[in-house]
Amino acid sequence: MTKTYQIVGIGNALVDVLSHCDDTFLAELGIEKGIMQLIDMERAVALYDRIGPALEISGGSAANTIAGAAQLGGRVAYVGKVTDDQLGRIFAHDLRAQGATYETVMAPAGNGAETGRCIVLVTPDGERTLNTYLGSSEHLEAADIDEAMMADAEWIFLEGYRFDGPGSHAAFARAIAAAKRAGGKVALTLSDPFCIERHRAAFAKMLREDVDLLFANRAEITSMYDTDDFEAALTRAAAEVDIVVGTDSENGATVVSGADRWQVPAIPTEVADATGAGDLFAGAFLWGLTNGHGLESCARMANVAASEVISHIGARPEADLKALFRRHGLL
Amino acid sequence: MTKTYQIVGIGNALVDVLSHCDDTFLAELGIEKGIMQLIDMERAVALYDRIGPALEISGGSAANTIAGAAQLGGRVAYVGKVTDDQLGRIFAHDLRAQGATYETVMAPAGNGAETGRCIVLVTPDGERTLNTYLGSSEHLEAADIDEAMMADAEWIFLEGYRFDGPGSHAAFARAIAAAKRAGGKVALTLSDPFCIERHRAAFAKMLREDVDLLFANRAEITSMYDTDDFEAALTRAAAEVDIVVGTDSENGATVVSGADRWQVPAIPTEVADATGAGDLFAGAFLWGLTNGHGLESCARMANVAASEVISHIGARPEADLKALFRRHGLL
Repeated sequence: MTKTYQIVGIGNALVDVLSHCDDTFLAELGIEKGIMQLIDMERAVALYDRIGPALEISGGSAANTIAGAAQLGGRVAYVGKVTDDQLGRIFAHDLRAQGATYETVMAPAGNGAETGRCIVLVTPDGERTLNTYLGSSEHLEAADIDEAMMADAEWIFLEGYRFDGPGSHAAFARAIAAAKRAGGKVALTLSDPFCIERHRAAFAKMLREDVDLLFANRAEITSMYDTDDFEAALTRAAAEVDIVVGTDSENGATVVSGADRWQVPAIPTEVADATGAGDLFAGAFLWGLTNGHGLESCARMANVAASEVISHIGARPEADLKALFRRHGLL
Repeated sequence: MTKTYQIVGIGNALVDVLSHCDDTFLAELGIEKGIMQLIDMERAVALYDRIGPALEISGGSAANTIAGAAQLGGRVAYVGKVTDDQLGRIFAHDLRAQGATYETVMAPAGNGAETGRCIVLVTPDGERTLNTYLGSSEHLEAADIDEAMMADAEWIFLEGYRFDGPGSHAAFARAIAAAKRAGGKVALTLSDPFCIERHRAAFAKMLREDVDLLFANRAEITSMYDTDDFEAALTRAAAEVDIVVGTDSENGATVVSGADRWQVPAIPTEVADATGAGDLFAGAFLWGLTNGHGLESCARMANVAASEVISHIGARPEADLKALFRRHGLL
């Protein structure tokens, strides 16, 4: 029986507040370049006061992944918590307008956290540095997981970032159990090296027991498997996980599945804003996989989608991704 | 004595909700292309439900003008009303972060209109069609006008759009009186042909009695002076107003002052999003004027600034405008 959803993503529901700055500005504020740093509301307000004019655009790592798969025509849904405020309504609109199902109950406005946001500082080299106020997205818990939706998904896609927060582990456990009972599969992205440091044991357990497909970049997978050797880390991951997809920026992606290994080059692109590269990579890969494409083709599609999203400001696709896949002979 | 402000702008404080669509979509929704249409909250919500994914970016015609002059290093302030909600705080941040003074008291959140927004629909030709929910910006009234600030301005810049709303005429009258008493000058933009239809008599009276500098495009000035002849309309306006600046899209701008007349060509530009062209034109022109540049140079700077803002999404400048002026030999 065909399941309703090809992919259901679970993650931090955030609106990106995107502003340009130079490296000096990051240094002055003591912000480490290129990573994601969690900040509280007080710090978010103080930082916002310091940055230049910004624009607001829906983000959130797994939400970007789902938006990408939705733009490709995938049957997809997203689970993540916002508050019923202006930014929350913006977040919900943008996902639904892209064709994704989004039904997570909003937190009431006025007496708690606002919708989460990520202050994205883009330096002239296109690199992005993330300062995340989780807001209500931190409070997604087991009760927010609709087991019927999880059971009705071919794949659930878990965002490593979403492991921060008191109820997150229970929420992921409930989602994994419901999906697996119904024959669904589990994909995980490690999200960020610092995220791994915060949740190493939980990630290790999930990789051993639950994960069927792992997305990780060089920094993440070498941290996770405690080695400097990217290829060795991939091999070790592939001993635990059916499909391992390692990305290495402009060096492209490597897919390892059992004894098979493919190295797929990146698409050379002038980087306007690196935000969302990994997210769109995952969205296109999972879309390809759930539409019957081979792993190497999936990785090629993923590279094309990543190159599209880094060529402009914002972490959601602007160009028609299917048309790009056709142009690259992938459809 | 040097005044604190070179320019103080008064207008509708709006956040733009920017989305792409094709001409068929506009036709289906019965929206006339290229103009500004006022909508109520109910229509704004219904329209928002229909549009694709969007991004949010501070806008408002006179606010864009002030942001442009601020980016050039001008001493500028803005007066316009938002609500103390998330979009209102975004609007305030973006103006202040650009270097403008913005002190208008926010309307309290929760028991009235939200911050105004403009749903900007950009078609593939780069033309923008505006659907404006005025929200709290409609309620700027005389009490919001700080007479000391007006008296401390070399120029006040009035946005024609801001004439909609119950207290607007009294607010403008107070601003004009305070500025004039202190030797200040008054610039007006007619904003939009439909805006002129709504406020023809009031605009005519202001042009006869108060306005020292008029900005208008071809459609606006020919409507205002009830003629099909652009040049004739400019001549008639110049009989009432010291400096008349008429813009005609890719045909450039004409400045008329007494017996003098200059025609200044536009900068050929691929239009990504026409939003803000007239606003940035006015901002650069007024910045040039208040920095001692001749009228022809002001118009050349204005064309450069307009070409910058239409080359990208959003109505605020991204590139360094002074650097562009230097590249064009204007500084």
